[in-house]
Amino acid sequence: VVLASATTAALAQTHDLLPVPREASWGAGSLVLGESDGRGPARFALEGRCDLRVERALDRASARLVRRGAPRPIRVARGKAAAMLVVACAHPGRPVQAVDEDESYSLTVDSRGAKIEAPNSLGALRGLETFLQLARREGTRWVVPAVTIRDAPRFPWRGLLVDPCRHWIPVDVVKRTLDGMAAVKMNVLHWHLTEDQGFRIESRRFPRLHEQGSDGLYYTQEQVREVIAYARDLGIRVVPEFDMPGHTTSWLVGHPELAAGPGPFAIVRTWGIFDAVFDPTREEVYAFLDGFLGEMAALFPDAYLHIGGDEVTGKPWNEDPRILDFIYQRGMRDKHDLQVYFNTRVNEILTRHGKRMMGWDEILQPGLPKTVVVQSWRGAQALADGARQGYDVILSQGYYLDHMLSAATHYAADPIPADSPLTEAERRHVLGGEACMWAEFVSPETVDSRVWPRTAAIAERLWSRADLRDADDLYRRLEVQGARLEELGLTHRSAGLAILRRLAGSHPVEPLKVLADVVEPLKHYQRGQTRRYTSETPLDRLVDAAAPESDVARRFGREVERFLATPAASRDDRGLRELLGLWRDNHRALDAVAAAVPALAEVRTLSRDLSSVGELGLAALDRLRSAATTAEWQAQARLLLDQAKVSRAAVTLAILPSVARLVDAAAAPGR
Amino acid sequence: VVLASATTAALAQTHDLLPVPREASWGAGSLVLGESDGRGPARFALEGRCDLRVERALDRASARLVRRGAPRPIRVARGKAAAMLVVACAHPGRPVQAVDEDESYSLTVDSRGAKIEAPNSLGALRGLETFLQLARREGTRWVVPAVTIRDAPRFPWRGLLVDPCRHWIPVDVVKRTLDGMAAVKMNVLHWHLTEDQGFRIESRRFPRLHEQGSDGLYYTQEQVREVIAYARDLGIRVVPEFDMPGHTTSWLVGHPELAAGPGPFAIVRTWGIFDAVFDPTREEVYAFLDGFLGEMAALFPDAYLHIGGDEVTGKPWNEDPRILDFIYQRGMRDKHDLQVYFNTRVNEILTRHGKRMMGWDEILQPGLPKTVVVQSWRGAQALADGARQGYDVILSQGYYLDHMLSAATHYAADPIPADSPLTEAERRHVLGGEACMWAEFVSPETVDSRVWPRTAAIAERLWSRADLRDADDLYRRLEVQGARLEELGLTHRSAGLAILRRLAGSHPVEPLKVLADVVEPLKHYQRGQTRRYTSETPLDRLVDAAAPESDVARRFGREVERFLATPAASRDDRGLRELLGLWRDNHRALDAVAAAVPALAEVRTLSRDLSSVGELGLAALDRLRSAATTAEWQAQARLLLDQAKVSRAAVTLAILPSVARLVDAAAAPGR
Repeated sequence: VVLASATTAALAQTHDLLPVPREASWGAGSLVLGESDGRGPARFALEGRCDLRVERALDRASARLVRRGAPRPIRVARGKAAAMLVVACAHPGRPVQAVDEDESYSLTVDSRGAKIEAPNSLGALRGLETFLQLARREGTRWVVPAVTIRDAPRFPWRGLLVDPCRHWIPVDVVKRTLDGMAAVKMNVLHWHLTEDQGFRIESRRFPRLHEQGSDGLYYTQEQVREVIAYARDLGIRVVPEFDMPGHTTSWLVGHPELAAGPGPFAIVRTWGIFDAVFDPTREEVYAFLDGFLGEMAALFPDAYLHIGGDEVTGKPWNEDPRILDFIYQRGMRDKHDLQVYFNTRVNEILTRHGKRMMGWDEILQPGLPKTVVVQSWRGAQALADGARQGYDVILSQGYYLDHMLSAATHYAADPIPADSPLTEAERRHVLGGEACMWAEFVSPETVDSRVWPRTAAIAERLWSRADLRDADDLYRRLEVQGARLEELGLTHRSAGLAILRRLAGSHPVEPLKVLADVVEPLKHYQRGQTRRYTSETPLDRLVDAAAPESDVARRFGREVERFLATPAASRDDRGLRELLGLWRDNHRALDAVAAAVPALAEVRTLSRDLSSVGELGLAALDRLRSAATTAEWQAQARLLLDQAKVSRAAVTLAILPSVARLVDAAAAPGR
Repeated sequence: VVLASATTAALAQTHDLLPVPREASWGAGSLVLGESDGRGPARFALEGRCDLRVERALDRASARLVRRGAPRPIRVARGKAAAMLVVACAHPGRPVQAVDEDESYSLTVDSRGAKIEAPNSLGALRGLETFLQLARREGTRWVVPAVTIRDAPRFPWRGLLVDPCRHWIPVDVVKRTLDGMAAVKMNVLHWHLTEDQGFRIESRRFPRLHEQGSDGLYYTQEQVREVIAYARDLGIRVVPEFDMPGHTTSWLVGHPELAAGPGPFAIVRTWGIFDAVFDPTREEVYAFLDGFLGEMAALFPDAYLHIGGDEVTGKPWNEDPRILDFIYQRGMRDKHDLQVYFNTRVNEILTRHGKRMMGWDEILQPGLPKTVVVQSWRGAQALADGARQGYDVILSQGYYLDHMLSAATHYAADPIPADSPLTEAERRHVLGGEACMWAEFVSPETVDSRVWPRTAAIAERLWSRADLRDADDLYRRLEVQGARLEELGLTHRSAGLAILRRLAGSHPVEPLKVLADVVEPLKHYQRGQTRRYTSETPLDRLVDAAAPESDVARRFGREVERFLATPAASRDDRGLRELLGLWRDNHRALDAVAAAVPALAEVRTLSRDLSSVGELGLAALDRLRSAATTAEWQAQARLLLDQAKVSRAAVTLAILPSVARLVDAAAAPGR
């Protein structure tokens, strides 16, 4: 079974580019990279006022080409003639990357050479990624097809939230995540550094924060500077988030004096919404925050700083007569008013330290200063409301990677949908969006497979034209560029197999792999309903090895559609039969493994169901050939499908809808 | 402001009866009870084969009349002539009250005397309550209006669930609750005796259950027998519930060997759904249950025994390879199948002990024996599904008293709604319904006000004709019979004031009363979102003093409707102004109290809002007179109403919708 190829038209338009550039005019012929054309190694050169970022990017580009198997390009001096790729910047770019900084570039390639031209180094970085995406093997040569591209992003804010609090994410994983982001032209790392479950950054002014709130798992300020510099080199801003006044249990372990309600507090080790919260009525809290945020404002050069503000239960406030009295005396009404008061005070502090405040959509309450940026996670309505009221806004609803939804689902979510009622002026307040990788069920081992390649779909939604909506072509390009991301050290395609190997131990891993390939983790927040999880629960099961979206199931689905759309006389069901037979027969081998491994007890029923479903699919194909089913067979088939729908081992069989299609077709009178 | 009186037609039909009898033909004149007619004291007598229950009921009836101020009736010998009330039973009734036992009766009253005739003692008890509801003061005399009634219930199962687990309910409260139930002809006490938060019944066979699972708050078997006998006297069955396999934390404190997953276990002191669960794969569990349920089956004479079966998270099952293996080896699929297996085993045990099993709707899974009764709490769909599949079913969805909804809301919920798709045969499986008093926010002090008078609306829905749907007339009768319930010792009308007095301490209580009268507790599960509650949190705040449904707000609403329906020229707004002025001016007095009492800090903002809303209502009346509002006034008014909508102190201002109606009318162009 092969992926049904996208239309030639789509291919001609988009080639393998991800995100698709604004304008591309494809020419004839191609540029050959290096040696085999007899002109010696590929020569890369800079022109104009490119800064050091572009020089280092050229070196990385060379290394990546070599990792792919291409001949090693060499750097030639600035302005040197006969360079094969010239990168020219009109200006070096701002010392601190800004949200409104120009990211446009042009790329022209013909058989004689390639040139990237950009107003500044930032655009040059983007153009270089496009060049690298185009470079491909053709026979024994490495070529770049002739093209003229003019490109610029649709939105200036294209971010990824990384949550190292619920599960720790080491610096090297953050760095390779940044590499992946740059490859698909994302430009903001939203670093969610504090949570109920952990305070993940060193504070020199208040060391009890990280010492008592992190189990020793935190980024030193040295490491933070290193990550910021690394990100800057890639054209990525780093916006830190210090979530407050709720989500602050880990702060309160060392500083219970900040809390509403009595301590003691302990680091939270489970998932959910917790009540711990600052006391916004006490001046000492603002003195503390002035000190802490001042320290962080100096550490993080970006103009924005995120204060969270989400999910404040307000319970400790309602329990404290002194706080209730504060609310009454100031003419406020409730916890919302008190949080607005808190936000206003924090905004004053941040303004004094030269930062613009951001927060989640809960902070959008009457009285919020208009300079604050609102990030919508609960619904597109909050986004539109914010823009209409004159706030800069960012969309994250629809981009929650931890929900385990398909790339196509995320791709369909648009910060300004086609039917948006916003005016032109209001639309300018929509800065873009952010994918969010919340880490309840993410470990350093699995995080890549939870982020990639789906994040690339969101990157394209935020960079490319709004009318680009062909999911099939997206999947084609995700396949190509998803594989390419491995050259950056990302493990999204390999980590799952490592987990399966550990599970199988000395037994063969293949049957487990067959099963893992056709399941998907439970969606939304369902996984948390299946077991009791804490931050110490190992994430080393089948569900952790399974990709959020099953490629095998998606391709099988396409093949079933194609098969059923073919007139009965010309149908060829051999490909389908091969897969269905594989699934049917897999159980015997898998069960031999599972019977010997207690950690696999949970997959035995699942595997048996896969076997039954495979057999059912084959029976449906038989009946499609013979045009004979009985009502009893149909009822049995539907019962089996219903039973197999039940989730086990925190996964579902992703092939079920397609097998159901075959069953329905076999049962339909006019098949 | 007086309650707008129901139509004369409704009054003529229903008088003050609650529930309304099946057929009533009202005559002229009335029977005078006792002394002042010169015939001496009222004489009550029995005829036929009435059992001792009816004798005792006659004595209680006399005592209740005396408590109302009527002259004391006397009992005269069986068959003695000139008795003023004769109660005649054709048969004594079954030794253990049965669900299909005849409850019909007839009651005829004319100026010479009254007679209750019933096929058995049970019907006589029902008829006697009707007689007591009819008896009323008329000038200096006590009379019963002339009438011929033929009555029988629509449904044979009309229950009230009492939960003494989350908060302890002492025996005397259970008894007065039974008295109230009998007064409105309910016939099942569903006694929810075990929960995560407490094991509330003595087990002589397994004393660690109540000793370690109850904090000493449990019913002795002697007390249980006493309650059962008390209920039988009132014509009420007692169906015990032992919730399993989930909701069993309190069992596991003393018997961790029953659990899936390791202990130790501790009594739960918070609210929610918990994971503790039996291990259905171990034979020892069934041996234990055989012993325990055998003991309980002998203690409770009723034919039915409820095993709960709700809200099994299944997490400990999913975590145990041995249990997963059991599931696999037996060809099951998941926790649902495992629970069906458990239910089937428990049903076998109960059948052996002569009981029919009941459970919540979660137990409705393929394979459930058809003798099991299903109680639907999650939706009317489960009820219909169950009936269609041939199970006897009982409705509780729509009857959750802890949701703090209006009597009219409960009244509208019908086990067989008018548009029910069920056939006649299927309808016979619908046995009736049960009001449920879950006790997260209920104490012995407040339970009466949470149960009464709203439960009477449900009692009528289950007893009376389906087409009886006049909510106004219901409220009129709830007012009359609700007050009468106090003669049984129920404190639903007095307990709130006692709480307010304690809150006010040495300060005047009146301003607090004004506020309490116009608020309602948060609906559904919202209260639990406002504070951190445990079973030790005192329930002694404004919200606990407030009735679930504000009579003042309801009457005010009716008055506003009546006022607005009157042509502008003939309107009289003095009644409305009096109330609105009271609310406006209440804040000054209340705030003086609240400023001195920390426990009242939470009501200050609320009281200020009530004041603003009162003032707004007055302003709206001014504008209705002068026909002059501005857009600015309207906008301000709506903002104020919006702000006042926010809940504080776990209550809402129940008068808001009616004040909003005045504002809307003042703003409407054609007012």
